[in-house]
Amino acid sequence: MRQSQLFTKTRREDPKDEVAANAKLLIRAGFINKELAGVYSYLPLGLRVLNKIKNIIREEMNALGGVELEMTALQNPELYEKTGRWSDEAVDNWFKTSLKTGTELGLGFTHEEMITELMKNHISSYKDLPIYAYQIQTKFRNEQRAKSGVMRGREFPMKDLYSFNDSEGSLNDFYDQVKGAYERIFEQVGLGDRTYITFASGGSFSKYSHEFQTLSEAGEDTIFVCEEKKFAINKEVMDEETLSELGIKPEELKEKKSIEVGNIFKLGTKFSEPLGLTFTDENGEKRPVVMGSYGIGPARVMGTVAEVLSDEKGLVWPRSIAPFLLHLIWIPGEGEMGAEVADRLYDELTSCGVEVFYDDRMASAGEKFATADLLGIPYRVVVSDKTLKEEKFELKERSTGKVRLIDINEMKALCGGE
Amino acid sequence: MRQSQLFTKTRREDPKDEVAANAKLLIRAGFINKELAGVYSYLPLGLRVLNKIKNIIREEMNALGGVELEMTALQNPELYEKTGRWSDEAVDNWFKTSLKTGTELGLGFTHEEMITELMKNHISSYKDLPIYAYQIQTKFRNEQRAKSGVMRGREFPMKDLYSFNDSEGSLNDFYDQVKGAYERIFEQVGLGDRTYITFASGGSFSKYSHEFQTLSEAGEDTIFVCEEKKFAINKEVMDEETLSELGIKPEELKEKKSIEVGNIFKLGTKFSEPLGLTFTDENGEKRPVVMGSYGIGPARVMGTVAEVLSDEKGLVWPRSIAPFLLHLIWIPGEGEMGAEVADRLYDELTSCGVEVFYDDRMASAGEKFATADLLGIPYRVVVSDKTLKEEKFELKERSTGKVRLIDINEMKALCGGE
Repeated sequence: MRQSQLFTKTRREDPKDEVAANAKLLIRAGFINKELAGVYSYLPLGLRVLNKIKNIIREEMNALGGVELEMTALQNPELYEKTGRWSDEAVDNWFKTSLKTGTELGLGFTHEEMITELMKNHISSYKDLPIYAYQIQTKFRNEQRAKSGVMRGREFPMKDLYSFNDSEGSLNDFYDQVKGAYERIFEQVGLGDRTYITFASGGSFSKYSHEFQTLSEAGEDTIFVCEEKKFAINKEVMDEETLSELGIKPEELKEKKSIEVGNIFKLGTKFSEPLGLTFTDENGEKRPVVMGSYGIGPARVMGTVAEVLSDEKGLVWPRSIAPFLLHLIWIPGEGEMGAEVADRLYDELTSCGVEVFYDDRMASAGEKFATADLLGIPYRVVVSDKTLKEEKFELKERSTGKVRLIDINEMKALCGGE
Repeated sequence: MRQSQLFTKTRREDPKDEVAANAKLLIRAGFINKELAGVYSYLPLGLRVLNKIKNIIREEMNALGGVELEMTALQNPELYEKTGRWSDEAVDNWFKTSLKTGTELGLGFTHEEMITELMKNHISSYKDLPIYAYQIQTKFRNEQRAKSGVMRGREFPMKDLYSFNDSEGSLNDFYDQVKGAYERIFEQVGLGDRTYITFASGGSFSKYSHEFQTLSEAGEDTIFVCEEKKFAINKEVMDEETLSELGIKPEELKEKKSIEVGNIFKLGTKFSEPLGLTFTDENGEKRPVVMGSYGIGPARVMGTVAEVLSDEKGLVWPRSIAPFLLHLIWIPGEGEMGAEVADRLYDELTSCGVEVFYDDRMASAGEKFATADLLGIPYRVVVSDKTLKEEKFELKERSTGKVRLIDINEMKALCGGE
């Protein structure tokens, strides 16, 4: 894409009404636009990042045998009355609205009730199980505070996977597979080395659930990390009982702030019983379906990457989720040669399928470099009078700052070497 | 995809609470699930169709120079107060909700206000124009009646494109380009021959807007069609003045029922003036930006295809938007040969990139064929004891019902011949 065709402008100053680093940076760089506190639109560059994160998640969900669907935001109160989650006392972050007839509706903060009800049309026998279904869809949560940028939105995309099994044993097997898929997802988006699977409160069915927590001073959670065994314990379940069960000593743990980037939860029959989702087993007996639910917020992942990988100059995207792989910068010079070479390089790389963001604007080198650092595209390639003389291109890696001169073949190898 | 892995089941009976043919068929076939009147979830097969329609639209928007973004459903009332569209008297289909603080918010039925405000951060000079930005995002409309299935939802996906120009002349040029893009979109989704560009009411800025109307008895609109000149006039602007302006005689027109599948609208400065979206022109003078807006509802397109192309046996998808290209049906027979051949064919075609839905279930030929007809995948391929003997596959085209025997090479040619 040519930069002259992108309508978004970067800003020199941080927005005054944001405290979170992710929101400041993403707004300054033109990745998101603040509509209301906790409500952000995704501008073209931000949408590209978000879609890449969604696709990494989608591929792992498909590999688990997950089938994608898309449920609605508008929710039927009757279902939530059956599970005791309709009242504002039970759930403190409902957004509610109403039909012209006056009937109240909810805006989904989650979809356990809806998918449990939906599955009643499709599950009757043990032969129908297991079923793994997921969506990547917009959730609404009426947060009291919304000061963490895209890490805690009032409207945000979420991947929610639901599992339907015939027994606790097969739920447990699938649950372990999801753990592996989540580890691969956080590895791929560039958060693997600082993300810890974390024992957390399990709710009514299971002793523990598992969270995936990324270390960051900007986090709202407190965890106790065991670096040697690469796991953590959420403060909420940090007691002698947990320590003894996990066979771990307090001195092996370090207290840290962290961001919850994912969670997985054994629901058991918590939803299938009140909503009547049953199946007939091999002996002809009716039993409630055994469920699990598994969430990741793609926008929170984006915000977390912005929090933990950026530097004083701006954003730093890992290659896997960068809006473009390569930021091609033409520095206006003496003749027309520079623009021609840059145009040709842009066409050549684009036709090879390389995602190039091409700064074809009339602007100074200083301004272009500062913008490039702010946007955080992994590789910056400069075409200028100086590089033309040397018959090479100048390549700078955003994450390390390393600069070197390369020729066209090295460039292609770099782009294809993903 | 193997049919045994898809959780959705088809139904023999029409749902009792639906009147629209599209909803009856799409629910019976397991493409959608009704959550509330006018509120439908997209099940895996339906989501595949919807995504294909979205991608056809997306490609045409990109070809127009459109840049994709994604705005939020939650809307700031302040913007609508400036344009006079906040009160329920002015707009009769608002869904409203509120923050914990009591502040009222809207759920977007459209996004003119939001995008106009957003562009104030990015437009200052004539050099920033033109800008074409679009999204494919979920709209909420609190319809009094919601009896037309996915053709008139209370929550539905919409593609909305907005144009920002420096003059009426350049708006007009772009508007004509959008007309062409829309014609190509309706052609590609299989509605081209029955969709008419239609003169409709233009609002405050322009005499006419244009709708794209697809002929159907299920439509809520009435239009007067001139078949020779391939355009129509909406009943709402059908008077002597319109006829004389368009140079057409009443006897050239036929009254028809139709479904509005798209509309394009010159907004002029209707939104830029009250919201203060201006630019500085070449002479240093501040002027309001000249806007247009252009909508298509992908779910309504899906519903319209279901209405007009289906037959008494079920859905009939055009190749371009079918959930799969080929429905491979294995008929359980005497030995294991049939299953082996079908498995191999499935693997082979899938690895060539052909989208195959493979009925690998233990079920009778009659049941499998009835399901295939209901789902409406373009090509049905049967592997049975009978076809094995003939060393061929039986191919049936869903739209024509034509059956013939083909070999593997013919099959590959058919699949690759898109």
